[in-house]
Amino acid sequence: MSDLPKYTALTPDIIERIRQAVGPDAVDLSPEALDEAARDASTEVHAPVAIVRVTTVDQIQALLKLANELNFPVTPRGAGTGLAGGALAVDGGVVLALAGMNRILSVDEKNLIAVVESGVIVADLQAAARAKGLSYPPDPASLDTATIGGTAATNAGGPACVKYGVTKHYVLGLEAVLPTGELVGAGTATRKGVVGYDLAQLLVGSEGTLGVITKLILKLIPLPEETCSQVAVFADLETAMGAVSAIMAGGVTPSAVEFLDSRCLHLVGDLLPFGDLPPAGALLLVETDGAKGAARAEMERVGAICSEQGALHLLPAGDEAQRQELWGVRRQVSLRIHDSAPIYVPEDVVLPLASIAEFVGRLPELAECHGLTIYAFGHSGDGNIHINVTAGEGQEASVEACVLELLKLVLTMGGTMSGEHGIGVAKKRFLPLELSAPSMRVQRDLKRVFDPKGILNPGKLFS
Amino acid sequence: MSDLPKYTALTPDIIERIRQAVGPDAVDLSPEALDEAARDASTEVHAPVAIVRVTTVDQIQALLKLANELNFPVTPRGAGTGLAGGALAVDGGVVLALAGMNRILSVDEKNLIAVVESGVIVADLQAAARAKGLSYPPDPASLDTATIGGTAATNAGGPACVKYGVTKHYVLGLEAVLPTGELVGAGTATRKGVVGYDLAQLLVGSEGTLGVITKLILKLIPLPEETCSQVAVFADLETAMGAVSAIMAGGVTPSAVEFLDSRCLHLVGDLLPFGDLPPAGALLLVETDGAKGAARAEMERVGAICSEQGALHLLPAGDEAQRQELWGVRRQVSLRIHDSAPIYVPEDVVLPLASIAEFVGRLPELAECHGLTIYAFGHSGDGNIHINVTAGEGQEASVEACVLELLKLVLTMGGTMSGEHGIGVAKKRFLPLELSAPSMRVQRDLKRVFDPKGILNPGKLFS
Repeated sequence: MSDLPKYTALTPDIIERIRQAVGPDAVDLSPEALDEAARDASTEVHAPVAIVRVTTVDQIQALLKLANELNFPVTPRGAGTGLAGGALAVDGGVVLALAGMNRILSVDEKNLIAVVESGVIVADLQAAARAKGLSYPPDPASLDTATIGGTAATNAGGPACVKYGVTKHYVLGLEAVLPTGELVGAGTATRKGVVGYDLAQLLVGSEGTLGVITKLILKLIPLPEETCSQVAVFADLETAMGAVSAIMAGGVTPSAVEFLDSRCLHLVGDLLPFGDLPPAGALLLVETDGAKGAARAEMERVGAICSEQGALHLLPAGDEAQRQELWGVRRQVSLRIHDSAPIYVPEDVVLPLASIAEFVGRLPELAECHGLTIYAFGHSGDGNIHINVTAGEGQEASVEACVLELLKLVLTMGGTMSGEHGIGVAKKRFLPLELSAPSMRVQRDLKRVFDPKGILNPGKLFS
Repeated sequence: MSDLPKYTALTPDIIERIRQAVGPDAVDLSPEALDEAARDASTEVHAPVAIVRVTTVDQIQALLKLANELNFPVTPRGAGTGLAGGALAVDGGVVLALAGMNRILSVDEKNLIAVVESGVIVADLQAAARAKGLSYPPDPASLDTATIGGTAATNAGGPACVKYGVTKHYVLGLEAVLPTGELVGAGTATRKGVVGYDLAQLLVGSEGTLGVITKLILKLIPLPEETCSQVAVFADLETAMGAVSAIMAGGVTPSAVEFLDSRCLHLVGDLLPFGDLPPAGALLLVETDGAKGAARAEMERVGAICSEQGALHLLPAGDEAQRQELWGVRRQVSLRIHDSAPIYVPEDVVLPLASIAEFVGRLPELAECHGLTIYAFGHSGDGNIHINVTAGEGQEASVEACVLELLKLVLTMGGTMSGEHGIGVAKKRFLPLELSAPSMRVQRDLKRVFDPKGILNPGKLFS
């Protein structure tokens, strides 16, 4: 923020204008609601002045037209599960709450598509698809609460993306209200389409800065008949990553290949039935899915490859309950890391597959040098590593220095600073490390095409 | 083109300036070359004044900087296999020939990526990948001559895309020279990445109007161990499409599901070993691929499903030679349609899967009403139908009227006018049928961000 106020303050008069535009019941000024809207799953806190809870496209159009006219900022928000502060009102103004736009308009098993409003919760769509024998694969960790619109705005991923692709691969078309208040359709309701620039894909991953997505046309796939899981423990991460390569080169595309580095493994070692975990050990959690029998055959192959590659322990899940137990171990990792230290910064880098082990191997030295602890786990099949830098009170400066060094190392090794969480406000200061000046300029100009007055989700990405 | 000249004519002085900028050997003014560059695989003819054959990024940057300074148009061209006139110099000026930028910079089996210059021929990349046990799936019909850059510019598809996705799903990152002459990188060299707007995906499918792609970082996948093919003949297309639905709902994702309508089937019936082809018959050519044994098991399942769904004839390919014979039949369709009439207009529409049979069923009436013949074949697994409208000399007006009606029907039925060929100049006049005014305005403004002077590939899409 510059020193001079860039935006008009939301005076009672302006609040009244907003009430007239969107309807009086849509405006929420209660301190509890404002406090809740000030937070997401990042560590940032930025309170809005008002929340507008919409259920119709007309309300969104009216609000954004007014924001243009009167010059106040509007920040779209789904469920607030983002990890980069993308839904926080860093310049105050209005939080546009989309959770009430939550109708599943159709799950069309003949055309293998779903049409949903953007406030639909991912798990609700998945359940509706499953009821018709279909699957919507993107599976971010927050899927029980995250909205489809939020996951589209951030192009969210998840464990299944190694086989099925990320959110953008499932968005065939969408409708969005542009910051100027105009409603546009983009993309198609078909499985292919090349008419004009790909505005749908441009809006996906734009973190709510180019438009407010109101409706999505999503690709569905037939529901796999069976899913098999197995845990494998290796002497070290390099050996484990060798097994991942061998699995993928062996013609098996697993539907998940999660890894835990040795620090994470030992953090949850008590949950595993193995007596002797190797000091530098690493764990893989592999899943296969597909037609009845085929997934099981693939998992047997995965087990054989892991053994050949030196797995010390193998633990296949015999049934769904055991499968959930294995994922429970994976989920405990995050919780226990959070509990382990007062400061906790999640990074979300991506490395070329062949560099994962080397990169993770350099983390202990980096941590030691800054007096911190670093945990690494994540999606080894697509190189997306969740790095958790933890520290004690007062170590903020060390964390910042360590993160900067970490991101530089990622970029030096051919990686990228975010695989699924996005930039938002939390990583905005690091953008110039990765993007060139001409790229930044073009992206700022693109933003201006959509949002000439800069009223939509300011303070994020390039603005 | 407006009445007043919009661009500077390429006088001998300007040609000399171009020679100085790109090197004298790069400029080709020979009548044969200009004549060749005036054509692609569409019916349009537009000759450039000069061809600049580049082998380096520096030459491209120098040419585009000069074009901005002197205001002459530049039209990028790969192999000229496009079907919409996208590589033709409709406003004259320079054709920028990229076929000489044809180095495969790496095929990296550890990271499952390839890095190539944009002039690399698709089949050459596929062969280089195959030699390392990898696959680059997008398979447009022109893959033996088309360049990767051209297929990225048009977001080309092909039969395998029903299982593997289209070109955009394989472009992880790219480098492009912007119309202003600046070189930008976009996307990543990793399998995931959400940093900033998705410029890479915006350039893919932009038909060479936003930048000149010079280098691509492409995702590769493990080479399937085996591919199985089978032809099935049904009493009519509706029954055939019922079988496609049943196959896909049965948990099999075929690596190709091509169809021929009855007119196409009877055009090549002599190449098939079936005595009695039903009058309204339709043919499916289905492929499965994957691990040894798995593809064959899936193909047996496909055969069983086709039988259950009423297939009259089944013809599985016993070996690779027989497989090529089946594809030979499919390829003969296009050739025989071309030979059947002096006028031939290829359309490339996409329908929702469940509407294919109904849509194709309405074509004979449409054809009759305009005194024309319409053939339909294509990718039934993703709804992408290649429509061939053929006519006798002098029937141009009828063809235009018929195509207009056809496209309107497609849009009424929830489809899109192009699935893989693009708009270029050939379908530009139909764009407002599909895109709304606000969408067109945003896209024109996007074009202006990249190309303020409008010198790159003018006369295409929105310009």
